[in-house]
Amino acid sequence: TKMKLPDQEESESSNAHENVPVEELDSSLGPSTSPDGPSDTDIRELGICKDPLLFIQLNELLGWPQELEWRETGRWMLFEEKLEVGAGRWSAPHVPTLALPSLQQLRSLLSQGLVLLNCPAQSLLELVEQVIQVESLSPELRGQLQALLLQRPRHHIQTRGTRPCWGSTHPRKASHDENVPLKEQCQNSLIQKLPPRAEAAAVLAGELGFLAQPLGAFVRLRDPVVLGPLTEVPIPSRFFCLLLGPPTHGRGYHEMGRAAAVLLSDLQFQWSVRRASNLQDLLAALDAFLERVTVLPPGRWDSTARIPPPKCLPFQHKRLPLQMQEAKDLFFLCRAHTEDRHSHESHEPSPELQRTGRLFGGLAQDVRRKALWYPSDFLDGLHPQCFSAVLYIYLATVTNAITFGGLLGDATEGAQGVLESFLGTALAGAAFCLMAGQPLTILSSTGPVLVFERLLFSFSRDYSLDYLPFRLWVGIWVATFCLVLVATEASVLVRYFTRFTEEGFCALISLIFIYDALGKMLNLTRTYPIQRPGSPAYGCFCQYPVPGGNESQWTRTKPKDRDDLLSMDLGLVNASLLSPPECTQQGGHPRGPGCHTVPDIAFVSILLFLTSFLFAMALKHVRTSGFFPSMVRKVLSDFSSVLAILLGCGLDAFLGLATPKLMVPREFKPTLPGRGWLVSPFGANPWWLTVAAALPALLLSILIFMDQQITAVILNRKEYRLRKGAGFHLDLFCVAVLMLLTSVLGLPWYVSATVISLAHMDSLRRESRDCAPGEAPSFLGIREQRLTGLVVFILTGVSIFLAPVLKFIPMPVLYGIFLYMGVAALSSIQFMKRVKLLLMPAKHQPDLLLLRHVPLSRVHLFTAIQLACLGLLWIIKSTPAAIIFPLMLLGLVGVRKALEWVFSPQELLWLDELMPEEERSTPEKGLEPEHPFSGYASEDSELMYQPKFPEINISVN
Amino acid sequence: TKMKLPDQEESESSNAHENVPVEELDSSLGPSTSPDGPSDTDIRELGICKDPLLFIQLNELLGWPQELEWRETGRWMLFEEKLEVGAGRWSAPHVPTLALPSLQQLRSLLSQGLVLLNCPAQSLLELVEQVIQVESLSPELRGQLQALLLQRPRHHIQTRGTRPCWGSTHPRKASHDENVPLKEQCQNSLIQKLPPRAEAAAVLAGELGFLAQPLGAFVRLRDPVVLGPLTEVPIPSRFFCLLLGPPTHGRGYHEMGRAAAVLLSDLQFQWSVRRASNLQDLLAALDAFLERVTVLPPGRWDSTARIPPPKCLPFQHKRLPLQMQEAKDLFFLCRAHTEDRHSHESHEPSPELQRTGRLFGGLAQDVRRKALWYPSDFLDGLHPQCFSAVLYIYLATVTNAITFGGLLGDATEGAQGVLESFLGTALAGAAFCLMAGQPLTILSSTGPVLVFERLLFSFSRDYSLDYLPFRLWVGIWVATFCLVLVATEASVLVRYFTRFTEEGFCALISLIFIYDALGKMLNLTRTYPIQRPGSPAYGCFCQYPVPGGNESQWTRTKPKDRDDLLSMDLGLVNASLLSPPECTQQGGHPRGPGCHTVPDIAFVSILLFLTSFLFAMALKHVRTSGFFPSMVRKVLSDFSSVLAILLGCGLDAFLGLATPKLMVPREFKPTLPGRGWLVSPFGANPWWLTVAAALPALLLSILIFMDQQITAVILNRKEYRLRKGAGFHLDLFCVAVLMLLTSVLGLPWYVSATVISLAHMDSLRRESRDCAPGEAPSFLGIREQRLTGLVVFILTGVSIFLAPVLKFIPMPVLYGIFLYMGVAALSSIQFMKRVKLLLMPAKHQPDLLLLRHVPLSRVHLFTAIQLACLGLLWIIKSTPAAIIFPLMLLGLVGVRKALEWVFSPQELLWLDELMPEEERSTPEKGLEPEHPFSGYASEDSELMYQPKFPEINISVN
Repeated sequence: TKMKLPDQEESESSNAHENVPVEELDSSLGPSTSPDGPSDTDIRELGICKDPLLFIQLNELLGWPQELEWRETGRWMLFEEKLEVGAGRWSAPHVPTLALPSLQQLRSLLSQGLVLLNCPAQSLLELVEQVIQVESLSPELRGQLQALLLQRPRHHIQTRGTRPCWGSTHPRKASHDENVPLKEQCQNSLIQKLPPRAEAAAVLAGELGFLAQPLGAFVRLRDPVVLGPLTEVPIPSRFFCLLLGPPTHGRGYHEMGRAAAVLLSDLQFQWSVRRASNLQDLLAALDAFLERVTVLPPGRWDSTARIPPPKCLPFQHKRLPLQMQEAKDLFFLCRAHTEDRHSHESHEPSPELQRTGRLFGGLAQDVRRKALWYPSDFLDGLHPQCFSAVLYIYLATVTNAITFGGLLGDATEGAQGVLESFLGTALAGAAFCLMAGQPLTILSSTGPVLVFERLLFSFSRDYSLDYLPFRLWVGIWVATFCLVLVATEASVLVRYFTRFTEEGFCALISLIFIYDALGKMLNLTRTYPIQRPGSPAYGCFCQYPVPGGNESQWTRTKPKDRDDLLSMDLGLVNASLLSPPECTQQGGHPRGPGCHTVPDIAFVSILLFLTSFLFAMALKHVRTSGFFPSMVRKVLSDFSSVLAILLGCGLDAFLGLATPKLMVPREFKPTLPGRGWLVSPFGANPWWLTVAAALPALLLSILIFMDQQITAVILNRKEYRLRKGAGFHLDLFCVAVLMLLTSVLGLPWYVSATVISLAHMDSLRRESRDCAPGEAPSFLGIREQRLTGLVVFILTGVSIFLAPVLKFIPMPVLYGIFLYMGVAALSSIQFMKRVKLLLMPAKHQPDLLLLRHVPLSRVHLFTAIQLACLGLLWIIKSTPAAIIFPLMLLGLVGVRKALEWVFSPQELLWLDELMPEEERSTPEKGLEPEHPFSGYASEDSELMYQPKFPEINISVN
Repeated sequence: TKMKLPDQEESESSNAHENVPVEELDSSLGPSTSPDGPSDTDIRELGICKDPLLFIQLNELLGWPQELEWRETGRWMLFEEKLEVGAGRWSAPHVPTLALPSLQQLRSLLSQGLVLLNCPAQSLLELVEQVIQVESLSPELRGQLQALLLQRPRHHIQTRGTRPCWGSTHPRKASHDENVPLKEQCQNSLIQKLPPRAEAAAVLAGELGFLAQPLGAFVRLRDPVVLGPLTEVPIPSRFFCLLLGPPTHGRGYHEMGRAAAVLLSDLQFQWSVRRASNLQDLLAALDAFLERVTVLPPGRWDSTARIPPPKCLPFQHKRLPLQMQEAKDLFFLCRAHTEDRHSHESHEPSPELQRTGRLFGGLAQDVRRKALWYPSDFLDGLHPQCFSAVLYIYLATVTNAITFGGLLGDATEGAQGVLESFLGTALAGAAFCLMAGQPLTILSSTGPVLVFERLLFSFSRDYSLDYLPFRLWVGIWVATFCLVLVATEASVLVRYFTRFTEEGFCALISLIFIYDALGKMLNLTRTYPIQRPGSPAYGCFCQYPVPGGNESQWTRTKPKDRDDLLSMDLGLVNASLLSPPECTQQGGHPRGPGCHTVPDIAFVSILLFLTSFLFAMALKHVRTSGFFPSMVRKVLSDFSSVLAILLGCGLDAFLGLATPKLMVPREFKPTLPGRGWLVSPFGANPWWLTVAAALPALLLSILIFMDQQITAVILNRKEYRLRKGAGFHLDLFCVAVLMLLTSVLGLPWYVSATVISLAHMDSLRRESRDCAPGEAPSFLGIREQRLTGLVVFILTGVSIFLAPVLKFIPMPVLYGIFLYMGVAALSSIQFMKRVKLLLMPAKHQPDLLLLRHVPLSRVHLFTAIQLACLGLLWIIKSTPAAIIFPLMLLGLVGVRKALEWVFSPQELLWLDELMPEEERSTPEKGLEPEHPFSGYASEDSELMYQPKFPEINISVN
């Protein structure tokens, strides 16, 4: 019985009403085919909703018998909004709930009532005339009814600013006066939430004393038309439903009206009823609806509770008949959409990771692919959001450069320092942003590379080698090895980096962040010791030469050590109590241990450290709190670390203590005195060292490859919906070239930094504005461009000259931000969720899909193995055996492989993901349920699938 | 068609199986009639569930065709638990959801199937024989089916310890071997959650290939009997439902089985089916169930999502036929239960607040009522929970005594001090606990009284009066006035203290707590100043007399002021750098400002302050987190302040700095030197002052009355379910007597302290253990007794001699705990929730019933008025006009009265509560919806009614 009617909407949908969401506009700058699945908006655009969105309004007849009036008491788009009559406001959007009898009453009323499925009415008056004509009513009643139906309903309209709507947004000919929308309708702020092609449906329900029997009418207008003030928004109406009857039992007609509205808000019912040709089609659609409803038993559920909208809607396509024209599109959509969620599908090698089989084939492919996007990489950066991203990432990069600069200076005894760190970061980062395959990556010194460099330096010091030339040769070899890896397309092996490897690596880096932050704070308390009672740090006075005294007295009072000084009787001295600087000015000499101690610094540092850490954490959570308008919340949480730094600086300035401040180099010359910018290729080293350097270079190459590519894999995950594709080979090539450059200049080595890069991506997220009330904004992708990174690194380079401004930032504040970055990174990986499970009694555990499918003991075993691996990595990193650390990282892949003997493929699918081999040998095995009885897994809808790749939204903001 | 069957269970329910929950036992110590409504447990006991609780288990037939096996895949008591087959564990209990078709299929299967409603089977074998006999099956099939049905099902049993169950818990005769439960069944930990009379229902469902057509059977056993290993718990089964059929479409029989189980778990269906006499009754019960279900539309709701159990179940009685015998009981229950929720009902004057019209009539009534409970007041205290309450309240009381002691010492220039504070608290508190009407009250110095005392002291100092005698006369007058108030039963006026007054008062006290804590911390940083760079606090050396020098040199170097000392050239001095104590020991003289400064103390104090505050806050939230077993969480959150104090002390000890510590008096004598323990009645004051003292005494009486009675009203709220009744008159009488006593002894004045008293009650909460999985433990009441308070005050008295232990507690830690108490108290009142609403955009506001019924602007106006009143009170408290502060508190009641011109009664009903007059003039007006159309308010079930009295669970733990 379906599809009998010629589809009038089909022709309409392709005319000027085409809906191009604002957010999608900037994607049209690049090539138009998106490699990833379409967004939720696309689903509505391409899928079912070639039919326009329906806005449904329930007008209830109130005030019987004295003052009859129509009043809007509910409205529906995706969810229900009720009018709180007493409070005079709309309820929050919620999932509608119905009583089953009201649906059945509606069905019987419609089956006996009037159904007009192609009504040619052009105005409310015509419509009302048609509706009352057909009914077997007395002429008197008709008159009364007509007057009643034409009565202007009372809407509850939230106006926000004036906006002309007639003639401009809906250019339709106004033939009848009552069709002209009211001014308040035009000012309705709801209009802005409706897509241009939206249509309205009006449900009128209520009790009418002069009716002898119930009166039901369902009208589909042939041409949708604005029915005057009938609906609160002046958009053309397509459906009209009238449910009136004598006053009987309580709220029967109100509930029937709600049932009709909920029915109309169902997409499949809409689809059917738009195509229905007679009453039978209508009732069949209603019955089909009833077949699909979910039933909650009474008594276990408070039927008046309002269920908040789910975060993600179930897919409508499943429920549409397959013979539909759209079926094929929908199938594609379904696949594309679920790919985000089912990681085992995402492991089908993406085009970037398919081996070409030619030397440098992958690199050539990457260059070709990225070249296409190159102009848009700059144009896409012209967006206000990029400004905040630049500010934020710049601060993170500078902090990183300073900290790692300091650490490197310590580790290499000044062979590299803060200036080299700034210069190298700026040079390497900017070059990478210009050339790389994935320009969202932020290059930085990383923990693992720092550990390796420290080892290399101690080795060369122990064997009295000239460090920088030796390092140059290591760099040359590493670059060579990396080029070999690029040539052989080794990057396709990243497919063996499963979540197990990623999480192990990520957790290690996060722990290094946290450990460093805490360690540096502890160091500060050692530099500025706490004065305990009895600790002899009091004494200080200003001593002058005795007027008649000779030099011998000076000598006599010169103590050998501190204890000596304290216990010694100084005898007669010419003294004052001036403060040390004044003393020196006056020609005196400050004496005593108390002259050099700075009190309070240790505790004020701890205070600043904690304040900035806690403040940043708190600000980050402002986004999910309910306070302040969403704009304010977004700014507060986006700039949480900047604001925390500012607060820390303000507090420090207020206290006015001499806390250790950020030291920015002021002169542009190498930290190590007496070396030029170019490292001499041999120095004092023997010639064979140029060859021997290949051995450490091999280890370093493994490390660089792992460090670089794990980060690249994380950044290029499907769930980030990158549309310009990855460039694993090109990235590695760039890293190799920069390796050579930095080795020659004696600058630090750089690879991709996971935490900052993810923070970079996070600050460039594009989200749709929420459309219908209750609909969550959906993630559209990332602003992929080269501009933000480039500006960040240019600013980093310029910072060498920004010393006068940056010198006000206290170091403890920066350590606090570091701690925050580490904690945020650590808490975002799924591994940590599982660690938390270890501490939770089973009944309090969250309802993770993982736990529905894998026994708890197995989950715990997997977590314990990960913890053990992490512990082992940490121990190796801290011992002299640290030189084999890169091999151990590689070993993680091996451990993961070995886990296949311990865990079944199903368990690994849930806990981790499958490695490439299994996928080939047991295709789609993972999708089968683990138990022989059919359909059990079907209980878990796509909705419940957690993204299997953890969203390492390390989101430093 | 109902109630035809003789009710076999009726006789059974009155025999030895009577269920007396453990928690209810201790209430039997006092008189047995409870003035408050019955608890949730009562509802089950008295109401519908004279029928036993039903445990329903779904056994599914799996493994067709190879290895047929019955497996338990779901179970129901109040909520559904699913077996997660892959994970091998039970899901969390959740509200079951069904597909409508499965219910309809079940209906048609049952209508064609076998229904045995009085089956006399005594064993599984007999039952199976009956079920297969009646069906029109071939003998061969019958054999197969019998073997299959007798096959032992596979349960998923969580065992916890061994426990014999056969013969001991269920003494039934075992005639057949297969009826003997398995060992694993007896070890099932679920047994402990079932009440003794519980019965089981088994639903067997699945696909069976050799069946040609569906096979449905529903059996009600005449005598419930343990059907061997059929259910996982070895309790007698009452119902048996078999749903088998040829393998057809997917999970049809599984879903039908679930539908049958959900049906059986419905109390009304249970009620009907226990009394059904034929198939029609059964189908009618099913149809009645369908009439009551809630329907969720498809597409807007993920049908596989699991809805967590609501915190509070809807009342079953609403849905039971009224002709039932229990109807009257239920109506009583309903009323009693909803009284907790509808505060306007709770304002019917309770017996304690009804005016007798006789002089001291109220007092006599109080004494009579409380005398009955007096023995139980001591016996009820013998519970381990009371131990933790004592420890906790003791610490709070001591902290309070110390702080207020210190403040009073400051305010009265030593006329009172810490020792008086300890002694007075111990004496007054213990006496009050022994004599008072509401012994849960904790007496303490309070902020308002302190403010008044400070004013009184400055007045008497300004006019050169002898303070303590003057104060004695004020005390005598106050006691007199209070006795007049008791005699005239003025306490019944507390009914005019609505939430508006309470919240204003509570907020003021909380703010005083917070302000004091922060102020004291700031004071500390003034006492131990921070050494800023350049601040001349360095200089310090040890000066000896010059061997040959004369006294004049000493004089010459003796500076006039500090600046002088610093700038002065001291000339030749005989010096060393010994630390000040050593210097003095060696006969020298420490010179210079640096000798007296103690560095780091200010910051370490702030650190300790913040640590203890944040740690206490964090521990308090452990209770609602999912970590650790519930026992550990409870201990951690109950002892949060104790643990925070311990942590603070530990941190302080670790740092080893000379932070200011708690000063506990060591000698037992009045702080003011030269006064005895008794205050002389006249001193140096003129005689007429004894009369003039009546004026300030009048103001103080108002203050004492307000302070005492507002706290009493809060403590005696209905929602705390106190069963021993209040004693407003008796309490005030005690306060008056103690007023006299403390005035004579020169000790501080005491009234009820809101915050600590509520913390006291909170630590004595009785909760039911959760019964069925998913059912929340319900609040049963408070352990009302006099023992905890008495022990607390005895300990406080003893603390005068505990100085050696208490002196290790740093003051900043105590200030942190004070801050925590203030913040916890402030955040628990509804007023603060409304203040938060001011900052929230409308769409993020929580779905409070209040907001459904009152326009947001009116809510904000009400909040603003409250804020203004609070601000005014604060200003008055801080200015010289503070003496009229008590009148202003009384003014709050007037302001509330005036609000009736601004707000409608409906609005006030939602925002506050009605004052007594309105209730009389417009009886039950508040219950009518504010809009003329009927039934709109009925949408808000009782479930959604927030307790209108804010739960000021100030819960210092």
